[in-house]
Amino acid sequence: MTDDSDLTTGTAGGTGGVGVWFVGAKGSVATTALLGAHALRARLAGPTGMVTELPALEGAHLVGLDDLVTGGHDLSEVPYRKRAELLASQRVVPRELVDALGDALDAADAEVLVPATAATVGEGGQAAVVDALVRDLRDFVRRHDLARLVVVDVSSTQPPLDPSDETLAADLATPESVRSAWEAGRSPLPLSATYAWAAFEVGASFVAFTPSPGVDLPAVAEQGRRAGATWAGSDGKTGETLMKSVLAPMFVQRALHVDSWASFNLLGGGDGQTLADPEAVRSKTATKAAGLAAMVGRPVPGPLHIDNVPDFGDWKTAWDHIGFTGFLGTRMTLQFTWAGCDSALAAPLVLDLVRLVAAAAEAGRTGAVTELGFFFKNPSGSDEHALGEQWRALLGLAEELGRR
Amino acid sequence: MTDDSDLTTGTAGGTGGVGVWFVGAKGSVATTALLGAHALRARLAGPTGMVTELPALEGAHLVGLDDLVTGGHDLSEVPYRKRAELLASQRVVPRELVDALGDALDAADAEVLVPATAATVGEGGQAAVVDALVRDLRDFVRRHDLARLVVVDVSSTQPPLDPSDETLAADLATPESVRSAWEAGRSPLPLSATYAWAAFEVGASFVAFTPSPGVDLPAVAEQGRRAGATWAGSDGKTGETLMKSVLAPMFVQRALHVDSWASFNLLGGGDGQTLADPEAVRSKTATKAAGLAAMVGRPVPGPLHIDNVPDFGDWKTAWDHIGFTGFLGTRMTLQFTWAGCDSALAAPLVLDLVRLVAAAAEAGRTGAVTELGFFFKNPSGSDEHALGEQWRALLGLAEELGRR
Amino acid sequence: MTDDSDLTTGTAGGTGGVGVWFVGAKGSVATTALLGAHALRARLAGPTGMVTELPALEGAHLVGLDDLVTGGHDLSEVPYRKRAELLASQRVVPRELVDALGDALDAADAEVLVPATAATVGEGGQAAVVDALVRDLRDFVRRHDLARLVVVDVSSTQPPLDPSDETLAADLATPESVRSAWEAGRSPLPLSATYAWAAFEVGASFVAFTPSPGVDLPAVAEQGRRAGATWAGSDGKTGETLMKSVLAPMFVQRALHVDSWASFNLLGGGDGQTLADPEAVRSKTATKAAGLAAMVGRPVPGPLHIDNVPDFGDWKTAWDHIGFTGFLGTRMTLQFTWAGCDSALAAPLVLDLVRLVAAAAEAGRTGAVTELGFFFKNPSGSDEHALGEQWRALLGLAEELGRR
Amino acid sequence: MTDDSDLTTGTAGGTGGVGVWFVGAKGSVATTALLGAHALRARLAGPTGMVTELPALEGAHLVGLDDLVTGGHDLSEVPYRKRAELLASQRVVPRELVDALGDALDAADAEVLVPATAATVGEGGQAAVVDALVRDLRDFVRRHDLARLVVVDVSSTQPPLDPSDETLAADLATPESVRSAWEAGRSPLPLSATYAWAAFEVGASFVAFTPSPGVDLPAVAEQGRRAGATWAGSDGKTGETLMKSVLAPMFVQRALHVDSWASFNLLGGGDGQTLADPEAVRSKTATKAAGLAAMVGRPVPGPLHIDNVPDFGDWKTAWDHIGFTGFLGTRMTLQFTWAGCDSALAAPLVLDLVRLVAAAAEAGRTGAVTELGFFFKNPSGSDEHALGEQWRALLGLAEELGRR
Ligand SMILES: NC(=O)c1ccc[n+]([C@@H]2O[C@H](COP(=O)([O-])OP(=O)(O)OC[C@H]3O[C@@H](n4cnc5c(N)ncnc54)[C@H](O)[C@@H]3O)[C@@H](O)[C@H]2O)c1
Ligand SMILES: NC(=O)c1ccc[n+]([C@@H]2O[C@H](COP(=O)([O-])OP(=O)(O)OC[C@H]3O[C@@H](n4cnc5c(N)ncnc54)[C@H](O)[C@@H]3O)[C@@H](O)[C@H]2O)c1
Ligand SMILES: NC(=O)c1ccc[n+]([C@@H]2O[C@H](COP(=O)([O-])OP(=O)(O)OC[C@H]3O[C@@H](n4cnc5c(N)ncnc54)[C@H](O)[C@@H]3O)[C@@H](O)[C@H]2O)c1
Ligand SMILES: NC(=O)c1ccc[n+]([C@@H]2O[C@H](COP(=O)([O-])OP(=O)(O)OC[C@H]3O[C@@H](n4cnc5c(N)ncnc54)[C@H](O)[C@@H]3O)[C@@H](O)[C@H]2O)c1
Ligand code: NA
Ligand code: NA
Repeated sequence: MTDDSDLTTGTAGGTGGVGVWFVGAKGSVATTALLGAHALRARLAGPTGMVTELPALEGAHLVGLDDLVTGGHDLSEVPYRKRAELLASQRVVPRELVDALGDALDAADAEVLVPATAATVGEGGQAAVVDALVRDLRDFVRRHDLARLVVVDVSSTQPPLDPSDETLAADLATPESVRSAWEAGRSPLPLSATYAWAAFEVGASFVAFTPSPGVDLPAVAEQGRRAGATWAGSDGKTGETLMKSVLAPMFVQRALHVDSWASFNLLGGGDGQTLADPEAVRSKTATKAAGLAAMVGRPVPGPLHIDNVPDFGDWKTAWDHIGFTGFLGTRMTLQFTWAGCDSALAAPLVLDLVRLVAAAAEAGRTGAVTELGFFFKNPSGSDEHALGEQWRALLGLAEELGRR
Repeated sequence: MTDDSDLTTGTAGGTGGVGVWFVGAKGSVATTALLGAHALRARLAGPTGMVTELPALEGAHLVGLDDLVTGGHDLSEVPYRKRAELLASQRVVPRELVDALGDALDAADAEVLVPATAATVGEGGQAAVVDALVRDLRDFVRRHDLARLVVVDVSSTQPPLDPSDETLAADLATPESVRSAWEAGRSPLPLSATYAWAAFEVGASFVAFTPSPGVDLPAVAEQGRRAGATWAGSDGKTGETLMKSVLAPMFVQRALHVDSWASFNLLGGGDGQTLADPEAVRSKTATKAAGLAAMVGRPVPGPLHIDNVPDFGDWKTAWDHIGFTGFLGTRMTLQFTWAGCDSALAAPLVLDLVRLVAAAAEAGRTGAVTELGFFFKNPSGSDEHALGEQWRALLGLAEELGRR
Repeated sequence: MTDDSDLTTGTAGGTGGVGVWFVGAKGSVATTALLGAHALRARLAGPTGMVTELPALEGAHLVGLDDLVTGGHDLSEVPYRKRAELLASQRVVPRELVDALGDALDAADAEVLVPATAATVGEGGQAAVVDALVRDLRDFVRRHDLARLVVVDVSSTQPPLDPSDETLAADLATPESVRSAWEAGRSPLPLSATYAWAAFEVGASFVAFTPSPGVDLPAVAEQGRRAGATWAGSDGKTGETLMKSVLAPMFVQRALHVDSWASFNLLGGGDGQTLADPEAVRSKTATKAAGLAAMVGRPVPGPLHIDNVPDFGDWKTAWDHIGFTGFLGTRMTLQFTWAGCDSALAAPLVLDLVRLVAAAAEAGRTGAVTELGFFFKNPSGSDEHALGEQWRALLGLAEELGRR
Repeated sequence: MTDDSDLTTGTAGGTGGVGVWFVGAKGSVATTALLGAHALRARLAGPTGMVTELPALEGAHLVGLDDLVTGGHDLSEVPYRKRAELLASQRVVPRELVDALGDALDAADAEVLVPATAATVGEGGQAAVVDALVRDLRDFVRRHDLARLVVVDVSSTQPPLDPSDETLAADLATPESVRSAWEAGRSPLPLSATYAWAAFEVGASFVAFTPSPGVDLPAVAEQGRRAGATWAGSDGKTGETLMKSVLAPMFVQRALHVDSWASFNLLGGGDGQTLADPEAVRSKTATKAAGLAAMVGRPVPGPLHIDNVPDFGDWKTAWDHIGFTGFLGTRMTLQFTWAGCDSALAAPLVLDLVRLVAAAAEAGRTGAVTELGFFFKNPSGSDEHALGEQWRALLGLAEELGRR
C-alpha cells in the first residue's frame, strides 16, 4: 500500500486480512479480546458470548478470526503476559489459557505503541499529535499489508465536554473550524476524537466502545463522512443497561407505569478507578440514563450510582430496584442483581463489532451503522434502545451483508 | 335471540353489547376485573395495566368497557362486596374504590350462578352437567340481548390429566368419542373442558386463563372448530414467566450460555391454597417450565418451586437465580425478585383478552388466536415464547382487526 | 408545681403522670407514636414492635402507656387527623385506626405549639428563643401537673457543625461560653441543642432520636450534668444499621474478613426530603458508618448512599452488598434487601425510650444512659454497637430499674 | 501405647501430638481442611475463617496446627492431589496452594483407609465392622504415638432413622440392647454411629459435623459416657442457618413478629448430590428448621428447599425471604442472598473443633461439650441457637480451658 492507497474505497489492495487497532490496547477489554481471539483460533475455547458466531448470523460472510491482525496504542507498557496473568488472578480469564498462549501474548507486545502526546510532539500541538497517530496507523497497515483497518476505542473513559464552553463548541463545529483552532494554538479535540480523526484520515473504520466524546462530535462525524468512513458507537452495552433494554420494553408493552428506577453499580479494576473520578463518570451515567427515558417515553425518577470498590476487580455487581404501578394503582417492585465479569462480556462484542463494521465498510456502508445499536448504550444515529427491536435490525444487517 | 340464533356467525342479532362470563366469577382475578371495569367506566381509575388501552393498539376498534356485560359461575356465594373488601384488606384494590362502587358490586351478585354438578343433575351425568351450563349461557345471552359472548376460565387450577389413563385418552380423541363415553356413563371431560364445550355449543368464544386441561384437548378443540368458535389460551403470563420471556431471549441473542435457572414462587390467597395441592400445582409448573426450554433451545437445569405462604395473600414473590457462562468460560449470575400483586396484574389482561377475542371472532377468525400468545405462559397454537416477538404478533393482529 | 419545683429531683410533686414532649410533633414518627399509644390504650392494637412490652423487660416497672401525656413543638400546623390520613394512604398505619381514633387525634392538636424562633422573639436572640421554649415546657408540666417530663427530638435532621469553625467550637465548650456568645449576639446552639438546653433548664429528660448535633456537644452535656438530667441518644437504629449490628459481629466472630460493605438506601417521605439536602444527609451517613468500623475494628471500604425517591413515601428499602473472604482466600458475598416502614419501626422505640428514660431518671440515673445503646446508631457514652451486647446491657438496666 | 492404654484418661502416653481421623477423608470438607492445615503450617496462608486463631480465644492454650496428625476413612480412593485440583477448578481453594503442597497431599494418601463394610467382614455382621474400625483407629494411634485422637464425621449425610421402626428404637436404647441386636444378626447402628461407637471404644473424642443420626442416639451417647469420652455436634453451621442465628434473635429482641421465613438453598458438589436424595435431605432440613422455631418460640411458616444444581459445584447460594409485622400491623420484608463456598466455610471450623474438643478432653470434660453450639445447627446438649449467646458460651469455655 502506498500513501495514497485508500482503505475506504478498498483500493489499499492489501491482502493481509483485517487489522484491529485497539486504543487502550493493554486494558482489560482489549487484553481479553486478544487472548480470546487467539484461544478461538487455537481451538482452546468455544465462541460463547460472541454474537457473530450464532447460527442466526451465519449468512453474513464475516471475516474469520484467523484473518484478524491486532495492534494498538496504550500509555501502559506492561507486557501482555503480565496483564493477562492479572486478569486470571481476578477470575476474568482462565489461567490455563494464559499459560498456553503465552508466546502469542509475548509476540503481540511488539504491535502496541505508546501514542504521541502534546508533550512528545513539541511545538506542533494537537495537529502534530494527530499526524503522529496517522503515521502509526499507516505503518501498521503497510507492515501487515492490510486490506482493511478498524480502530476500536477501548481506552479509559474521558469526561464529557463542558457544555458552557462556547469557544470549544465553535471549534468543534466543522473540520475547518478544528483546523483553524489548531492554527490558533488550541487543542479542541478531546482524546477519543483524535483517534477517530486519525482513523478517518487513513480511511479506517472506527468503533467507539466507550462513552467518551468522539465520533459523534459534528466536526469529527463530518470528517468521517467526507472520508467515506464507517463507524459504530457508543459505549458497549454489557450489563445493567442491557437488562434495562429488555425490562423497560416489558413494562411499557404491559402498560405498567414505572414509578422509579434506582441503579447501583459496584466495580473495581481499571474502569472502576477511572470512574471514581467524578468528571469521567458523568459520561457513563449520561449514556446509562438516556436509554431508559427513551424507552419509557419520559424521564424516570431514581438515583444512578457507579462506585469503585477495589476488591471487585474486573467484576461488576449491579443492583436495580424498580417501583411500578399496575391496575387500580397497585404498587409493585422488581429488583435484580447482576454479577457479571465486565471484560468477559465486552471482549467478544468487540470482536463482533470489528467483524461487522469491516463487513459493512466492505459492503459500501458509510457513516454510522445504525443497525449496530444492539451493542451500545447510546447508539450512534438511532434512538432505538429496546433490545428486541435492535436484534431485528441486526438480523436485517446480517442479511444485507450476506448479499455481498 | 332465539335458540337457533348463532353467536358464532353473528346472527344472534343481539344489540346489548358483549357478554363476559367468568368461570370462577367470585375469585380474586374475576372480582378485580369486575371492580376495575366499573372503576374505569366511572372514571375512578385510569387504564394502567391494560394493554388494549395503549396508543399502539388504538386502531384495533375494540369494544368499549361500557359495552361489557358480566356474569359467571362460581361455587362460592360470597357477595362481591365482601370479596372486594377482603381484596382491599390485602392491598390488592383500594378500599375507596370498593366503597364508591358498592352498589355496582351488589348488583353484580345477581348474575353469578352456582354451576350444575354431577350431584345436582342426578342421573344425567356429565352430558346433563354440560346441558345445564349451556342453558345458563343461553339465558345470559338472551337476558341481555348480547351480540357476542366470551367465556373466561379464571377458576381454580385443575390438575393435569393422568397420561397413563388410556381409556381417558381414547374418550377425549373426538367429539364423538366424548359422547360415546357419556352414553357409557363415563365423565371424560375435565372441569375446565366442560365450560369450553358449553361455550362452543352456544357459539361463544373462550379464554383459558388457567393452566387447567381444557380447550387444547383434541375433542374439545375439534368441537370448537366445528362450531366456528374462537379461543385463546392458556395460563395468563403475569410475573416470573413474563420475566423469563424477556430474559431468556436476551441471553440467547447475546450468545451467553444459561447453565441453570432456579425459580422459587411464594404466594398465598386462593390460588396459593389451590396450588398447595401437589396434583394441581403440576399443571402450573408444566406451563412455567415449557417456555424456558423452548426459548433456550434445550431443557435448562434448575428447580421450580411454588409454595403457599398464607400471609402473602394475593401477593406473589418470585426469586429466580440464573447461572450463565460467557466468553472463555467465565461464570456469572443474575438474580431477580419480583414482588407483584397477582390479581392486579391478571385482571386487566382478562379485560384485554375479552376485547381482543371478541373482535377476532367478529373479524371471522376461528380456532386459536395465536397472536395472543403475548398474554399466556403456554400459548395455544404457537411455540413462540419471546415477549418481543409476541408483541409484534399482537400489533399485527391489532392492525388486522383495525381493517374491519 | 411552682417555678422552683424541680423535675430532676422529683420535687415537682406533680401527680399527672409522665409528659412526652415531641420536638417535631407533627412528623411521621411522632404522629405514628401518638396514634399507636392511643391504639394500645384503647386495645385496638397489640404491642408488636415495642421492646418494653417483651416478657424479658416485664420486671422493670415502667410507666403505663395510659399515664403518658403528649404535647410538642412543630413548625407545621397541619391537624393530626390529616397527617394520620396521609400516613394511612402510604400504608404506614391502618386507615381503620385513624378513623376509630379521630377524636383523640383532634384533641391532641391543642397541645402542639409552633416554637419561638429568632424572628419571633425579636431582639432577644437565641437566649430569648431558649427562654420561650422553657416557658412552653413549664406550662405543659403545670397544665397537666406532671410528675416527670421527657423531651424527644424527632424533628427534621439538622446538618452537622462545620468542624473548621473555631469560634463556634469555642462557644460550645461550656455553658458559660454559650452564654457569653449570646451576650455577644451570636447563636452558637444548633437547633436540636436549643431543645436539649431548654429541657435541661426545666429538669426534664431528653431523647435524641435524630443524628442532629445536640445533646453530645460539650456545653450541652455539661449543662445537663449540672441539672442532674438524664438523656439518651442518638439516631434511632431501625433498619440497615440494625442489620449491620448483628451481621458485622457474625463476620467478626467467625473470623471472616469483610472486604467491602456497600450500603444503598432509598426512601421518600419527609425524612427523604430532608436527607435529599447534601448538608443534612452528612449527619446521617456519619452515624451510619461509624458503627461498622467500630465493630469490624477498622474502616471498611464501600459506598454509603441515601437517596430520596418520592414514590417510596415513608418506606425505606436498603440494599447492602458485603464482600468477604474466608479460608485460604476464598471470596464470598452476602446481599440483603430490607423493605421496612420507617415510622412503624421508629414509633414504638420512641415510646420504649420515653418509658425507660423516665424510669432511669426516677431511679436517680443522671447523664447518658449508656445501656440504651440498643436503640441507637450512635450510642451516647458508649462504643458498643453489637446488638447482642447491647441487648444484654438493656436487660441489665431493666433489672436495675426493677429494684426501684 | 499398648492396647490397654487409654486416650480418655490420657494414659495412652503418646507424645506424637493430636490425631485427627476424618470419616469421609476424601470429601470436600476434609480435603480443604487438610490442605489448609498444611498451608498454615507452611505459612502459605493466613488463618482467616479460623475462630480459634482470633485474639479472643488466644488464652485457651490449644494444640498447634503443627502438632496435628491426619488420617481417615473413605470409600473413595481418589488421590488427594486430584481431589484438591478438582476443588481448585471450582474456585474452592487456590490452584497455587495445591501445586505448592502437592508432596504433602501425596503423603497424606497413605493414611486414608477404605473402611470395612458388612460385605467385607463376611459373617461377623455389624459387630465385626465396628471391630475393624476400632482396629484402624488403634493402629493409627500406635503408628503415630498419639497423645489424643479426635474422630470427625465429615462423610456424606445419612438419612434419619425411620421413627415408626419400633424394633430399631428398642435396639438403640442402650449399649446392651445394641449388642443383643448384633447377636440376633441385626445391624441397628446407622453408619455415622458405627464410627462414633468405634471412637468411644478407643477413648477418642468425636465431632459430628454432619446431621447424620449418630452420637445423639441413646445407646451411643451412653457408650460415650461410660467411656468418659468427649464429643460435640451436630451439623456444622456455615451459611443460611448461621444467618438465621443472628437474624431471628434480632427480630425477637425488637419485638417484631416473624410471619413467614422461606429458605431456598442451591448447591452442587458431592454434598449437593447426596442431598438430592429425598431421604438424605430430611436429616438436613430437620436440623435447619429446628433452630428457627427454638429462637422464635414457635414454628414459623414457610418452605425450606435444598436443591442440587450441578453447575454450582461446592458453592452454595441461599435465598431467604422473611415476612414480618411491626407496630400497628405494618407488614415488612427482609431478603438475603448468601453466596458462600461451603467447604471454605466448613474446613476451618473443623480444625477449630478438633483443637477445642481435644483441649476439653484434656481438661477432663466428658459428654457433649455444650459450649460448642456456636459451630452447629443442632447443638448437642443445648437448646441455645442464638449466635450471640453461643459466642459468650464459647468465650467462657476458652477461659476455662486456659485455666488448665
Ligand atoms: N467492560 C465493559 O463491560 C465495558 C462496557 C462499556 C464500555 N466500556 C469501556 O471500555 C473501556 C475500557 O475498559 P477496561 O475495563 O478495559 O478499562 P481499563 O482501565 O482496563 O483499560 C483502559 C486502558 O486504556 C489505556 N489508556 C488510557 N489513556 C489512554 C490514551 N490516551 N491512549 C491510549 N490508551 C490509553 C489505559 O492505560 C488502559 O490500559 C472503558 O472506557 C470502559 O468504560 C467497558
Ligand atoms: N393471578 C394471576 O396472575 C394468574 C396468572 C395465571 C393464571 N391464573 C389462574 O387464574 C385462576 C384464578 O386465580 P384467582 O387468584 O382468582 O384464584 P381464586 O382461588 O381466588 O379464584 C378461583 C375461583 O374459582 C372458583 N371455582 C372453583 N371451582 C369452580 C368450579 N368448578 N366452577 C366455578 N368456579 C369454581 C372458586 O370458588 C374461586 O372463587 C387460577 O387458576 C390461577 O392459577 C392467575
Ligand atoms: N423513622 C426512622 O426509622 C428514624 C430512625 C432514626 C432517626 N429518625 C429521625 O427522626 C426524625 C423524624 O423522622 P420523620 O420521618 O418523622 O420525619 P418528618 O419529616 O416526617 O418529621 C419531622 C418533623 O419535624 C418538624 N420540624 C422541622 N423543623 C422543626 C423545628 N425547628 N422545630 C420543631 N419541629 C420541626 C417538621 O415540620 C416535621 O413535622 C428525622 O430526623 C429522622 O432522621 C427516624
Ligand atoms: N460444607 C459445609 O458447609 C457443611 C456444613 C454442615 C455439614 N456438612 C456436612 O459435611 C459432610 C461432608 O461434606 P462434603 O461437602 O465434604 O461432602 P462430600 O460429598 O464432598 O464428601 C463426603 C465424603 O464422604 C465419603 N463417604 C461416603 N460414605 C462413606 C462411608 N461410609 N465411610 C467413609 N466415607 C464415606 C464420600 O466418599 C466422600 O468422599 C456432609 O455430610 C455435609 O452435609 C457440610
Ligand atoms: Na442515539
Ligand atoms: Na458512642
